[in-house]
Amino acid sequence: MKGTGASSGIGIGKAVIVNDVLPEVLKRYIDDADREIEVFMEKLENTKKETARLAGILEEKASETEAQILNGHVLLMSDPALIDEITGIIKNEKICAESAIDSVCGNYADIFASMDDELMQQRAADMKDIRNRLIKAVLGIETVDTALIPAGSILVAQDLTPSMTAGLNPENICGIVTKFGGRTSHSAILSRALEIPAVVGAADILEYVNDADIVCFDGDSGEICINPDLKTLAEYEGKRDAFLRERSELNSYRGKTSQTLDGVRVELAANIGNPDDAKKALEYDAEGIGLFRTEFLFMDRNTAPSENEQFEAYKSVALIMGGKPVIIRTLDIGGDKEIPYMNIEKDENPFLGYRAVRLCLDRKDDIYKPQLRALLRASAFGNIKIMIPFITGVDEFRAAKAAVLEAMKELDLEGIKYNRGIEIGVMMETAAASIMADVIAKEADFFSIGTNDLTQYTLAVDRGNTKISYLYSTYNPAVLRSIRNIIYAGKNAGISVGMCGEAAADPKMVPLLLAWGLDEFSMSASSILKTRKAVMGYDTALLKEIADKALSFATEEEVRHYLEGIC
Amino acid sequence: MKGTGASSGIGIGKAVIVNDVLPEVLKRYIDDADREIEVFMEKLENTKKETARLAGILEEKASETEAQILNGHVLLMSDPALIDEITGIIKNEKICAESAIDSVCGNYADIFASMDDELMQQRAADMKDIRNRLIKAVLGIETVDTALIPAGSILVAQDLTPSMTAGLNPENICGIVTKFGGRTSHSAILSRALEIPAVVGAADILEYVNDADIVCFDGDSGEICINPDLKTLAEYEGKRDAFLRERSELNSYRGKTSQTLDGVRVELAANIGNPDDAKKALEYDAEGIGLFRTEFLFMDRNTAPSENEQFEAYKSVALIMGGKPVIIRTLDIGGDKEIPYMNIEKDENPFLGYRAVRLCLDRKDDIYKPQLRALLRASAFGNIKIMIPFITGVDEFRAAKAAVLEAMKELDLEGIKYNRGIEIGVMMETAAASIMADVIAKEADFFSIGTNDLTQYTLAVDRGNTKISYLYSTYNPAVLRSIRNIIYAGKNAGISVGMCGEAAADPKMVPLLLAWGLDEFSMSASSILKTRKAVMGYDTALLKEIADKALSFATEEEVRHYLEGIC
Repeated sequence: MKGTGASSGIGIGKAVIVNDVLPEVLKRYIDDADREIEVFMEKLENTKKETARLAGILEEKASETEAQILNGHVLLMSDPALIDEITGIIKNEKICAESAIDSVCGNYADIFASMDDELMQQRAADMKDIRNRLIKAVLGIETVDTALIPAGSILVAQDLTPSMTAGLNPENICGIVTKFGGRTSHSAILSRALEIPAVVGAADILEYVNDADIVCFDGDSGEICINPDLKTLAEYEGKRDAFLRERSELNSYRGKTSQTLDGVRVELAANIGNPDDAKKALEYDAEGIGLFRTEFLFMDRNTAPSENEQFEAYKSVALIMGGKPVIIRTLDIGGDKEIPYMNIEKDENPFLGYRAVRLCLDRKDDIYKPQLRALLRASAFGNIKIMIPFITGVDEFRAAKAAVLEAMKELDLEGIKYNRGIEIGVMMETAAASIMADVIAKEADFFSIGTNDLTQYTLAVDRGNTKISYLYSTYNPAVLRSIRNIIYAGKNAGISVGMCGEAAADPKMVPLLLAWGLDEFSMSASSILKTRKAVMGYDTALLKEIADKALSFATEEEVRHYLEGIC
Repeated sequence: MKGTGASSGIGIGKAVIVNDVLPEVLKRYIDDADREIEVFMEKLENTKKETARLAGILEEKASETEAQILNGHVLLMSDPALIDEITGIIKNEKICAESAIDSVCGNYADIFASMDDELMQQRAADMKDIRNRLIKAVLGIETVDTALIPAGSILVAQDLTPSMTAGLNPENICGIVTKFGGRTSHSAILSRALEIPAVVGAADILEYVNDADIVCFDGDSGEICINPDLKTLAEYEGKRDAFLRERSELNSYRGKTSQTLDGVRVELAANIGNPDDAKKALEYDAEGIGLFRTEFLFMDRNTAPSENEQFEAYKSVALIMGGKPVIIRTLDIGGDKEIPYMNIEKDENPFLGYRAVRLCLDRKDDIYKPQLRALLRASAFGNIKIMIPFITGVDEFRAAKAAVLEAMKELDLEGIKYNRGIEIGVMMETAAASIMADVIAKEADFFSIGTNDLTQYTLAVDRGNTKISYLYSTYNPAVLRSIRNIIYAGKNAGISVGMCGEAAADPKMVPLLLAWGLDEFSMSASSILKTRKAVMGYDTALLKEIADKALSFATEEEVRHYLEGIC
């Protein structure tokens, strides 16, 4: 059986099936509606308190992001519109509270679920979770207490609801397998945060597994084996031991200097999506932040974040990272994201559309300037650098720099401090930027190659389109030539060149990037120690030949085979 | 006042307002439904005959495409479903024929009009035209006889209906101005076919112009002037004379050799969309077909065209062009086009999606092989070359060539003749192809640069997106470097390099393309003579310096200003 690998590691243990299934809700007619509403309100308050308590526990165990999901539930349960609708039905139709909850929350969940947007799908899941908890509360049914799961267990469930996870004792759980979910589902994110191996989206798991079955799985490949024979079990144990050995070996690379055998020093940085991630980056010994995506500040809300709110977020990352460099990318958003208050029309081809710096320069007053002011103000508290995404020409970059200069002048007039020498760089991710890298390098303080988009645009392949994903590859010779060209252009102009796409942590790419002279590698925090180990094993003098050979091939397949052979 | 320039030239003349307005249709109740149906069927037959006759006249005057519109009307009027619906209403509701026609045809027109697709908009216009003609026929109202319009007239109308245009005497019409329509509307296409200057989409025209007013307009800029003062009239007359002089001067370039002052010979070819266009290409003295788009064969129908149908189309172009080269591009279609029988899902980013050669290689049996077989079979009848679009790597091109080889083997077994030495080339239109041009050139028989898409992909700008159209420019230095690189790579490998995008006929681009050594320029047929004149005025030795200078600039604006200064 196979699911989606969601959290690295090998899970081996006894299955504990956790059924958080809703009891059948019957539509009972009641006499005393006021009394029913009173009970409902009391249970609602209890559930809210309990949820807030769980959020507190989650915050300690995993991360703020996880806790925010539960805190979001508390907010949803405090929504007067929702409460009025439920109590209104109880009063007017004289039906029991559980049936009113089922109908109102179920209705909202359906509406959210019908929207074609990952965020709305998450909202639908939240609403279902709230419905189930409220119904159980009014019916007096105990929720599953996952704290009682014994050591050595593999937790098997339809999905990990936030209320389930809060009680978990990570020490006792050797792995998690769920029927639903993808790599970005709540279950997946939580498993990674707790470093518990996990496979999600294993559609048939509940049909094949029974309580106390032995379950083994690979949290990377997603492969699952139920009641393995002794040989298979031994294999999984071997793999688990190797994984744990590697993890502990990688831990020995903490605090070491990221330099090659011949003394070439590089910076290994982390890509982050919110201030909370910066702490995790430090846990993994990141030497800086190579990409701080600022979109999180703008998503999932009704109005644009204020300058002050942005300032606090940027400042907090700068403070967390101490004096280490923090590259913050200005807003990289377009018509493919549903942000109602931004009023962006959906483009026919969003990835070739009105987005990122194009949108920012067009909406300087309401969007760009507040962000640039916030970034400048935060620059007084650490080593912040500004990165402009989606640049296709030096004129666009000049316009962005002019906007920064305007913001500086405003701050000067207001007597607000900022770093006058703040570095402003270009995210190199379009074919045009790559072709003009020599010209752009003369005016930029640094380059950072965004390989995900660079690959997408060079090959004209939407990286989210599964029908043509066979074409999407950084090993494509055109992409490699483009990367080399950008690095050489940056080095010639004497500026630092980094990379913040997936390729920066790809073991097959690292030798090529070292050979060409990349200065900074930015990646998921969890890849940093592994990449440091790799870097420390190479001699750049010997890599030049490998890089030349790799670029001598005509096709992606040849390049990939060659790199697989030597890495 | 301003409309959309639809057909080049300056129109000056007396306004003749042609109102083809439908009389008010009253819902009369009738006694004898059978008799009413009898009358309706008789008038329907008459109208069909008259329409077929007009189609014949149009075919002589303008072109087959125009006649096909009217022939399409005959087909629509022969549709049993439409007739049954109308006669059913007459019979069941006992209402008059004109009211039944109005309701049924109007309903279909509304349905078509509500669909967001240019083709469906055209269908809506067709349906309205049919409705009006049928209602007039049953009411016994004479349709406007445009044949009676006197010499020196400017025809002003809401829209040019096909029935109106059939009777026109082009000699008498100095210009056409319509309230509705865009550059691809029927009125626009017909005006260009008849070489009558025209402005369409002049929204307020009928409010400001009266019969016998003097009207002047510019069929390129779309500017319209009603009852001009003498000075303005003289200006328009001057522009008209210059236009006519230029047209006649350009006519003197017919039959001349397209070579520069220093004897560099180039080929000036036409881009065409259907076999009919090939005739027009020859009228404009095209030396070949540089791009024959084959999509027309697949659009606007319920099943894929058979191999035989395709063979006939390709063969007819080959025969029309005699021995001149005809480059036929294999199917370049994706999820943005609605072709129900192809069953292509709509992509999130169609221009970065499953399309063109990607789709063809994936659907070799039902789509690609029949087309390749048809192309090979047609190659026995002329100088056909095959061009593969949307190539991003040499491996894809190899796969396409392998498919051609398979088709050849099949034809060998079946004993069918084809040109064994047929040339197979690459349409260079992605950043990846440009970067790898040196590698691809070793395996291709020719290159043709598709500047429209090359510009789009290099700059990551959807060329249909008006919000960011300011970025879309071939003068962008990244695009120019890319074009130069492709030409040099092709020349180094000793293969012919052509261009089939808009840029090939751009007077500012021609000197650069000559300097870099482009062999073939393919464009709208109507631009060929103008481009020949330009080519014959240049000395390539002197152009090298201009080209180097153009490429020394950092921004699109600087390049454009420089080229505007010298061209």
